[in-house]
Parts: sequence; structure tokens; C-alpha cells
Amino acid sequence: MEGMFTHEYFMKLALKEAGYAYEEDEVPVGAIVVSNNKIIGKGYNQTERLKDVTAHAEMIAITAAANYLGSKFLENCTLYVTLEPCLMCASALKWARISTLVYGANDIKAGYSLMQGKVLHPKTEVVTGIMENDCGSLLTQFFKEKR
Amino acid sequence: MEGMFTHEYFMKLALKEAGYAYEEDEVPVGAIVVSNNKIIGKGYNQTERLKDVTAHAEMIAITAAANYLGSKFLENCTLYVTLEPCLMCASALKWARISTLVYGANDIKAGYSLMQGKVLHPKTEVVTGIMENDCGSLLTQFFKEKR
Repeated sequence: MEGMFTHEYFMKLALKEAGYAYEEDEVPVGAIVVSNNKIIGKGYNQTERLKDVTAHAEMIAITAAANYLGSKFLENCTLYVTLEPCLMCASALKWARISTLVYGANDIKAGYSLMQGKVLHPKTEVVTGIMENDCGSLLTQFFKEKR
Repeated sequence: MEGMFTHEYFMKLALKEAGYAYEEDEVPVGAIVVSNNKIIGKGYNQTERLKDVTAHAEMIAITAAANYLGSKFLENCTLYVTLEPCLMCASALKWARISTLVYGANDIKAGYSLMQGKVLHPKTEVVTGIMENDCGSLLTQFFKEKR
């Protein structure tokens, strides 16, 4: 990562997406897909609005990026997501052969890493804990208000 | 299962969906969602046409059924699919809290049951092997032609 295009730079943009979810009263998770320092897909959780469990931030961003590339494989792409992906999203990232996954907060309830065995593609590089506190506190704030 | 509405009856309809995938040169997998003996969602694999790894038959059927019900939870619903779901689809079925999953052929390469640990919702009932040979031979035929 050189110059302005750091993991933090892109995670801030994923957090901006998470903010849109928060504003719409959705569990605030945001994701972007980056290729050659360019955003080619983005998404935020819309499971409530769309009444669709498949509408996680990552799934929307994956579909958008694939549409942009005209390819179902997201090679040389990095997905930034504010929360550790669940099993559904991690498995989608495997099918897409994403090059790099960068996430912020850990998901201690539904994160894919709770699973024994390899979920992601063997070639996928994983970077964790980028802006973990900011990503996590948005979620904490959301659930606090729900109680 | 009583009268005409047997597992085989609905699996035949899922196989019909798989046939559409086959005709479109997609890996032939088809799925339907049934509630009170009525089809409320269907889908067939469209990953190539849409260039989107998330476009598995089950994902399309889940989204369609949720749209029909206006609910992200597919309670009192059964998903019929010709091939054992992958981890992505099984995890989506967990989020959707599907009541029953019925599948035909086993997926010995990418089936969710290869994973250690519980992938589906604890309340989801699973029925396997329904029209296994028909479901499997459509896939075998497809891959044979590819070689």
C-alpha cells in the first residue's frame, strides 16, 4: 500500500457505506471492492429494506464489481468490509476468487473464521483489524439504540 | 407428504428449473421454494449468464420467495434443490431460517455437509436423496459434454 491508497483509506469508504445502512436502520455494515486503486463495486446491508437475507453488504458489492468487470471472478480485487464476513459472504468470496479480503471488526457470533476448515479460496490473502474500533463502535451504537 | 404433493412431485419441478440451466449451458441446478404446497419462489443457476457467483439457483429462489412473502424469514417453507447446497447457499438458508431443505444429489466437492460444524439453522429439517439419480445424471451429462 503506497501513498494515499492505504487500507485505512479504503476502509473509510467502506465505513461510509456502513453509515448509509445505519441511517436506514439496517445493521451497519458496508463494503467496497477495489481494483487498481479504483472502486468497482460497493454495497451496504439492506436485508431489512429488501426483506432478503442475501442482501448483505458484501454480496451487493461482489455483484456490482462482477457487473463492472463483466467477469464472475474478482481476481486482482480487494474487498473491504467493516465487519468480518459471515459464512454466506465468505463462501461467495471463495467462488469469486477474490485476491484480498480486508475487514475491520471481528464478528464473534457469525464470522466465517468461527468455522473449522478452510472457507475462503486458498489464494485469498486476509488482512484484519483495519479501523477495527471505528467499524465496531458503529455496530455497538446501533445495537445499543435497539435495546 | 400426502396425495400428489410428495417430495418427488416438487423435486420434479426443481429438476425442470435445472433443465432451463442446462439449456442455457449453465451447470444444471434448479431450486424451488414451497409453502403450503404452493411454489412461492424458483430459480436456476445463472452464474455464467449473469457473470455473478452469487446467482446460484437457491439464492435466486430464496430472494424470490422472500419477495413473495414480504419477509426475509422463510418459516414454514421448504426449499427443494437438485444438488446439495454449497456453503454460501446453506448459510443463506440458515439466515432465512428455512423450515425444511430437500435435496437430490450430493455435492461431494462443494456441498455444505463437507464442513465440520453446524451450517444450517438448528431447526431446519433436512431430507436428502430425493430423485438423486435424475438430479445427478443431469449434472453428469452436462460435465461429460464439456470435456
